[in-house]
Amino acid sequence: MQTLDRNPSLIAALQTRRTKLAALVNVPVLLWSGSSSPRNFRANTFPFRASSHFLYFAGLPLENAAICLDSGKLVLFMDEASPGSALWHGESPTRDEIAAAIGAYDAYPLAELDSQSEMATIAVQDATTRSHQARVLKRAIASADDSQGFDLALAQAIVSLRTTHDDFALAELRKAATVSIAAHKAGMAATPYARTEAAVRAAMESVIIANNMTCAYTSIVTVHGEVLHNNQYHHPMQPGDLLLADVGAEAASGWASDITRTWAVAGKFSPAQRAIYDVVLAAHDACIAAIRPGVEYRELHLLAARTIAAGLVDLGILRGQVDNLVEQDAHALFFPHGVGHLLGLDVHDMEDLGDLAGYETGRVRSDRFGLNYLRLDRPLQTGMVVTIEPGFYQVPAILQDLERRSRYQAVVDWDRLAQFADVRGIRIEDDVLVTATGSEVLTAALPTKAEAIEQLVQS
Amino acid sequence: MQTLDRNPSLIAALQTRRTKLAALVNVPVLLWSGSSSPRNFRANTFPFRASSHFLYFAGLPLENAAICLDSGKLVLFMDEASPGSALWHGESPTRDEIAAAIGAYDAYPLAELDSQSEMATIAVQDATTRSHQARVLKRAIASADDSQGFDLALAQAIVSLRTTHDDFALAELRKAATVSIAAHKAGMAATPYARTEAAVRAAMESVIIANNMTCAYTSIVTVHGEVLHNNQYHHPMQPGDLLLADVGAEAASGWASDITRTWAVAGKFSPAQRAIYDVVLAAHDACIAAIRPGVEYRELHLLAARTIAAGLVDLGILRGQVDNLVEQDAHALFFPHGVGHLLGLDVHDMEDLGDLAGYETGRVRSDRFGLNYLRLDRPLQTGMVVTIEPGFYQVPAILQDLERRSRYQAVVDWDRLAQFADVRGIRIEDDVLVTATGSEVLTAALPTKAEAIEQLVQS
Repeated sequence: MQTLDRNPSLIAALQTRRTKLAALVNVPVLLWSGSSSPRNFRANTFPFRASSHFLYFAGLPLENAAICLDSGKLVLFMDEASPGSALWHGESPTRDEIAAAIGAYDAYPLAELDSQSEMATIAVQDATTRSHQARVLKRAIASADDSQGFDLALAQAIVSLRTTHDDFALAELRKAATVSIAAHKAGMAATPYARTEAAVRAAMESVIIANNMTCAYTSIVTVHGEVLHNNQYHHPMQPGDLLLADVGAEAASGWASDITRTWAVAGKFSPAQRAIYDVVLAAHDACIAAIRPGVEYRELHLLAARTIAAGLVDLGILRGQVDNLVEQDAHALFFPHGVGHLLGLDVHDMEDLGDLAGYETGRVRSDRFGLNYLRLDRPLQTGMVVTIEPGFYQVPAILQDLERRSRYQAVVDWDRLAQFADVRGIRIEDDVLVTATGSEVLTAALPTKAEAIEQLVQS
Repeated sequence: MQTLDRNPSLIAALQTRRTKLAALVNVPVLLWSGSSSPRNFRANTFPFRASSHFLYFAGLPLENAAICLDSGKLVLFMDEASPGSALWHGESPTRDEIAAAIGAYDAYPLAELDSQSEMATIAVQDATTRSHQARVLKRAIASADDSQGFDLALAQAIVSLRTTHDDFALAELRKAATVSIAAHKAGMAATPYARTEAAVRAAMESVIIANNMTCAYTSIVTVHGEVLHNNQYHHPMQPGDLLLADVGAEAASGWASDITRTWAVAGKFSPAQRAIYDVVLAAHDACIAAIRPGVEYRELHLLAARTIAAGLVDLGILRGQVDNLVEQDAHALFFPHGVGHLLGLDVHDMEDLGDLAGYETGRVRSDRFGLNYLRLDRPLQTGMVVTIEPGFYQVPAILQDLERRSRYQAVVDWDRLAQFADVRGIRIEDDVLVTATGSEVLTAALPTKAEAIEQLVQS
């Protein structure tokens, strides 16, 4: 935690969230922030990240703290910094100063945290704090995606609040988006001078670090975009390669962004790359154009699937009727993941709760190859922020799979596909706010059109 | 893990380490690599860092793996990547390929890991793996700094091996040092264009990322060097400020580096800053000049203390006889930490074992204000790598403490000290290998002299 400015608009936003929660749950709530995870020894920790649920109601990334939420009031539990800590960590704000900064009703040392009645909680990620949760609440605490009883009721209430964003959250999401956009532009500009993926990653993350933010997730910066979660950066970049960069900043407040762009290492797309790029972009644009309250996100996914299938038919890679191709999941040979997810304090927002946030009550994941990886299946609401991230990949594990090759033998022109061998992976991803009348692309300041991307790389 | 090159010199080095271990312990040893720690949700993890003890004998940062070391032979236990993992993470080397790359005698799935007899282990940092250790060994596993019985004997054996470095380790330590040196030069060069600490940090860490390494610890890049473990980067840099940067790279193999330099934001030290800088540099140089096998590291610390005290007497800040000042810990008013520590696979090497590695058997930490923070109290041996990092700080928690002010009233010229108000914190830190005839500074390519530092900032 750095400076402690008393920010009336933060306090007001937090108070509204707490009041809304009080209307939804009828037991007191205890939420923990968590503690730092050790890396190779206890004093060498990973950077502390507070639990998102805690951040949502407490507003500050306090380490080793807990809050009790009852009838809209917040009581803070945390210890003052030890006297010796000033030597190593500098002067810290007092507990009372912190309590004032977040609009707490009262504040006590952690030792006074005691469960007087049945209280609801959500398990944090780190094991040390989870055992503290169990000790205080005098019961076993299931992992967050396996909550039961009033813990589950709390999780559902939090989902209903966090699924749409208030103005304070949106302001923070915009800050994160702005820095991510600058990071992507820096990555494009660095490409002509970079020889490895790592060098481009450095240029991008350096913008995030310089803005005193962190990465919201492990960056993907790779010439092997066909490996969907590729966290390797050692490959040299060849002039004919595409570079796929999925990099997003997280504001100090915890709010995330998530952007993917794909560009040509040489600056200019090859004709094959450009053709596929435009197919993916058409899917991206079609989905965004279709966003408005009430639209089912699953329909956006299927719209992306149809747009990609249609584009691949036009290019002669797929054969058949578009609807029929999507019905048999032929699009998923090249677009095997979902079109996006909720975005908020987590890059996959509230994924700690399993599919509770992503899936409307009563819905479960489909078994279908083309739908199984869809992370979001809800009607859109004003104030939601979702990613839209269609892609095209030539994944050897899919395309070389003999069973799949035989199943899709008739609908894929494998010879024609071979002419697109220099397109291993393309994804275009933006963060989109659902508005009352349609949508607003929070990341719109970063171009998506092929020519504009080419210009940014060559500039 | 990235590429899997079969490297005969790595295999030979690993084999030698295993053979040496076999000579020191008489029970089979099971070491775990650990698993990734979740950040805000399970799939969003911090970058995986394998246990250093595992890395020392297995050589590769394998996630969720274990090794059995018995009579100098290594048997690897790990699961093959799941078929679905190729889609998300790409093709992985097989277990047998990995086993071959590290010179394993045999390799099995994790499920076949079973304790047939009394086996020694060391607890890893992550709780998930720690409970796996307990299940396999059918007993409670104490934290690594609290080992008992044959676990303690194993820890002692590992300390005796890891305290000095073989050629393979030294080559990796040099790689990490080289990148850290480049990072510091980049930080200096970026300073004239940077407005905040964060911008300089970005320039430095960007070099580490571009070289496909990670930071060995959380960087300190601050105009408030008097906060010893300052992990804030939001302060604007003013022309009169000093910037203290303690930033070190860690090679992909896990071997660390640890460098601190302090420079003037304006490029040129003020006369007061320069005077204190030269006192700290004198301590740094004196310690390095005194390094040779057999010398007690504690004596280096006291040499630094005397050199700093003498310098402060010359500057009129302290009054009295140097030996007498050090005896009463007056130097520790301004130099309150130890002069350094072991460096290896951990930046504070083997600190997971508490003081077992840092302190010679039978020695314990001193209660003295001026010695309590000393992390290393052993005679130097050929092949050890230690840091030498004296400093001068004006820590408000120390200098404004009424009890200390009265105790040291007579030996500090507070009015004179006030003339050095623009020196909040200076530290100069290098990584030094103890050689048969003296020492080799692994980080010597980064200048320490004030003029050379000034030149790097202004260039």
